[in-house]
Amino acid sequence: MINVVKIGGGVIDDAAALAFFLRDFASLPGKKILVHGGGREATRLCERMDIPAVMIEGRRVTDSPTLDIVTMVYAGLINKRIVAMLQSIGCDAIGFSGADGNLIPATRRSPVPVDYGYVGDINSGRVNSRLLELLLANGNVPVCCAICHDEHGELLNCNADSVAAALARGLSYSEQVRLTYCFEKPGVMLDPEDESTVIPEITPGSFAELKADGVVSAGMIPKIQNALECVANGVCEVRICRASALGGSVGTVIRIK
Amino acid sequence: MINVVKIGGGVIDDAAALAFFLRDFASLPGKKILVHGGGREATRLCERMDIPAVMIEGRRVTDSPTLDIVTMVYAGLINKRIVAMLQSIGCDAIGFSGADGNLIPATRRSPVPVDYGYVGDINSGRVNSRLLELLLANGNVPVCCAICHDEHGELLNCNADSVAAALARGLSYSEQVRLTYCFEKPGVMLDPEDESTVIPEITPGSFAELKADGVVSAGMIPKIQNALECVANGVCEVRICRASALGGSVGTVIRIK
Repeated sequence: MINVVKIGGGVIDDAAALAFFLRDFASLPGKKILVHGGGREATRLCERMDIPAVMIEGRRVTDSPTLDIVTMVYAGLINKRIVAMLQSIGCDAIGFSGADGNLIPATRRSPVPVDYGYVGDINSGRVNSRLLELLLANGNVPVCCAICHDEHGELLNCNADSVAAALARGLSYSEQVRLTYCFEKPGVMLDPEDESTVIPEITPGSFAELKADGVVSAGMIPKIQNALECVANGVCEVRICRASALGGSVGTVIRIK
Repeated sequence: MINVVKIGGGVIDDAAALAFFLRDFASLPGKKILVHGGGREATRLCERMDIPAVMIEGRRVTDSPTLDIVTMVYAGLINKRIVAMLQSIGCDAIGFSGADGNLIPATRRSPVPVDYGYVGDINSGRVNSRLLELLLANGNVPVCCAICHDEHGELLNCNADSVAAALARGLSYSEQVRLTYCFEKPGVMLDPEDESTVIPEITPGSFAELKADGVVSAGMIPKIQNALECVANGVCEVRICRASALGGSVGTVIRIK
């Protein structure tokens, strides 16, 4: 069994929460991979360097100076901080961008109809799982950021949820894989204001009902669809939970059933 | 035979020279490792962010904000740019800091008599050559920056020449290793103003003479001493040459003879 765990910006921005999470992560038995998002550090750095945030339809455009910033912050600062912290607690972490070892080839998103700049979509079927398997068998713990490349020398800013999904799917051909998305909420909730309403399990059938009933918030729909695609493509289960609940079994589990 | 090649800031700051160099490097037959220094990018970023350069006896102090900058620039921007460029020309590069896979443990330099901040000295005998051997046998090309760690969660800014020397020495236990230092000059010169005076070969005996005669410039002495230590500890030969001469055989060769 391989655990693929993704953490988002909320945990990364909170030093105490991150240290707590990394201890839990390091305690997971067996093979494991960590995928991390960004956090506010890149935005702060853009502000300090007077790089204006260009937004189109509420999404940030990755122009060339912004690509440099996210490469520095995600692949440099955050990735190496996490690696050094894991190493200090006996977890033999190795940091990766998607360019390293051609781990995650991506394609720059078409500039039509909207040009988001150096943003890439992952070529999911082409993840270099052979390299991951070699390192996992060697006892290493890959720590991956979402900076990928187009195989022609260009780095691309990709989505960390999609990176985690692609790695989980790629590894599931040879081994059982469990994917966990850690975020700020305890799971998918019936009432987004009431944390006691976490839905313990979602299947393709129950998701259709939840969507039809308008229960699931718009922001959760792509996350759940992403999870359902994973379980439809060989991943055993996808769990959505709070970062602090990694070691437990609470949260929402998405299964093919 | 493993080639360990180190490039400095001069090549990294010149996009055309870097592209030219990386083609030559990718063409080297067999197993190879690239170690890269920094360049002016980190200094420029410090200036843009109003992080003052604190100098003691002509050397820059790595305080906490400066450590973040060099981690971002060396382990993030420069490392991933080089990896993506090598990948685009068919060279299966994987980027490394010294923290990744505990590749290069280091010790923070004593704050007495001079506190240089987060600067580390490499624990040369403790390089993780096993991991490098695994990746080299897999056809990968490690690309290493000089950000190392203390194994207790702290990143440390180390010297890239020393990183290259430590990797070369570590690998020389199991295989023949050639170390090449690429820099701005064509080699060690009798007359620093006359590039036709490159010394083709230096041995421990001839170095003593050169030093006694005052021929070798003060700046070159630590580089040559470093090289002599390498050849005294199992590295076949150390070559000092211009980056553009990597593919050839010119420059200064340091041998034990």
